[in-house]
Amino acid sequence: MSIVVYLPNPKTSAKWVTRLQGVLPEAEIVSAHEPFDAQAVTYAAVWQPATGFLAGLPNLKAIISLAAGVDHIAADAELPRHIPVIRTVGTDLTQRMREYVAMQVLNLHRYMPEMQLAAAKAEWKALVAPVAGQRTVGVLGLGNLGAASAALLAQIGFETRGWARSPKTIDGVTCHHGPEGLKAFLEGCEIVVNLLPLTPETHHILNADFFAQLPKGARLLNAARGDHLDEAALLEALESGQIAHAILDAFPLEPLAKDHPFWTHEGVTVTPHIASQVDPETGSHIMAANIAEFEAQGHCKDQADMQRGY
Amino acid sequence: MSIVVYLPNPKTSAKWVTRLQGVLPEAEIVSAHEPFDAQAVTYAAVWQPATGFLAGLPNLKAIISLAAGVDHIAADAELPRHIPVIRTVGTDLTQRMREYVAMQVLNLHRYMPEMQLAAAKAEWKALVAPVAGQRTVGVLGLGNLGAASAALLAQIGFETRGWARSPKTIDGVTCHHGPEGLKAFLEGCEIVVNLLPLTPETHHILNADFFAQLPKGARLLNAARGDHLDEAALLEALESGQIAHAILDAFPLEPLAKDHPFWTHEGVTVTPHIASQVDPETGSHIMAANIAEFEAQGHCKDQADMQRGY
Repeated sequence: MSIVVYLPNPKTSAKWVTRLQGVLPEAEIVSAHEPFDAQAVTYAAVWQPATGFLAGLPNLKAIISLAAGVDHIAADAELPRHIPVIRTVGTDLTQRMREYVAMQVLNLHRYMPEMQLAAAKAEWKALVAPVAGQRTVGVLGLGNLGAASAALLAQIGFETRGWARSPKTIDGVTCHHGPEGLKAFLEGCEIVVNLLPLTPETHHILNADFFAQLPKGARLLNAARGDHLDEAALLEALESGQIAHAILDAFPLEPLAKDHPFWTHEGVTVTPHIASQVDPETGSHIMAANIAEFEAQGHCKDQADMQRGY
Repeated sequence: MSIVVYLPNPKTSAKWVTRLQGVLPEAEIVSAHEPFDAQAVTYAAVWQPATGFLAGLPNLKAIISLAAGVDHIAADAELPRHIPVIRTVGTDLTQRMREYVAMQVLNLHRYMPEMQLAAAKAEWKALVAPVAGQRTVGVLGLGNLGAASAALLAQIGFETRGWARSPKTIDGVTCHHGPEGLKAFLEGCEIVVNLLPLTPETHHILNADFFAQLPKGARLLNAARGDHLDEAALLEALESGQIAHAILDAFPLEPLAKDHPFWTHEGVTVTPHIASQVDPETGSHIMAANIAEFEAQGHCKDQADMQRGY
């Protein structure tokens, strides 16, 4: 078995190679940033593959996404679309996301950005929030990450709702679904968390029309993809007060440009795409298990439906 | 029944009077900032009473603390020590504290202060934390607030321990107790949360010796009282790197002075005593129920042991 690892950063690629080699000592594992035999490669483990990179591997059995999402692969205009794509999802990825979502929803709920702004000027500005039970929070996207996050928000005590394409059931969470369920989800939703997969349908779903359906002064957390958000619409909604604050973890271009208005906007908190990630240490074990499953059965439970986009 | 309300701020006192009057329409309720008949008063509901204020009420049946703590009453040198003191504890107070503790422990765990510092300079600084299960968090003080907070930290997934004066049992939390249990509690504790009552024994418990027993680079959350903390020792521990970051919600003098070094210290986050409070809306109901219990039975389950100090 020959596996090539491609991430835009050569150092990160090398880290993955080392970890994977430890878990799969029999396999030949190479970084795409080093010379390698493209004919021999049967698996490509990738994050944001360069256009045409995958098309140049004629004997691929499967593509492995080094993330829960597969949009970064679907974006490749020359993607060989008949090759199965396996998502890397694990307990650590899910755990990191539920931690991040709980943290940022609590920060928004308890007005931490506003108080930190005052504190930077040595101002004692005590803002008292309602208790979580009087705060309605909604999670868009109820896959592994969304469902775990929504469940934790409910355990913390928030009045929690969720929205997904198809019907879901989560303890303590009121679940809405489909285009026809979005209106009810947004109505009265004071804090919205986006964890949707990025597909043509969800591109710029966080737009002016979406914001207008939220209550005045709603707060937003985008922990999915930058392209879910219409940035101009957010800046307008912040200006009008329709959105009181937004915490953003993902951007169309990363790292976010030094002169991007989000860095200095008082209504925006930027985090550097750290909500959750597959780290080489645990990710290499998950990937090895997925490859073993795929080799044995010809398919894998974490295989993406590329038509659907996740 | 005649109740006098005293908080240092006349406006806040007036708010409490209004709320209490709504809940106890038959009672005579007055603010200490207005003229009133001291002879008639049978209950005094207070926060940080001025020295001698309570001693000037000859017919008091009980003193009601407008907080879970009673240190602000014990601090009165002229306190009539034979009068029972009733604490005001309720589900909202507990809920607010567990929200605050979860939020700030997550912020410390996920390096949010460090990343926000970088973000203020438009720097994309991605810091990846271990998952919560690989992070040891300890809660000092396991009363209503501490126990609920520790339980939530365990639910979030942290390796959670607690410490109290007497033995406790909390699901998912390793509980230590007594002076002899403190060493084991502190050893390897990466994030420490202080929720102890303030008593002569716990005054400046967060001192140089305490910090030295934590692992290098530990993080601190003080959500109890300012006098728990030896401020000079904290500044030294931050300087040496023994403490990596501290979030402080309470201070000996509030509001914190404009020129206090904590406001501008990169290793300190100040929040303006908002971790949790008894608000007039729900607090007035709790207080009315406690008075009814005290009137009927001559004592009350939330009565403080003033010898012990909580």
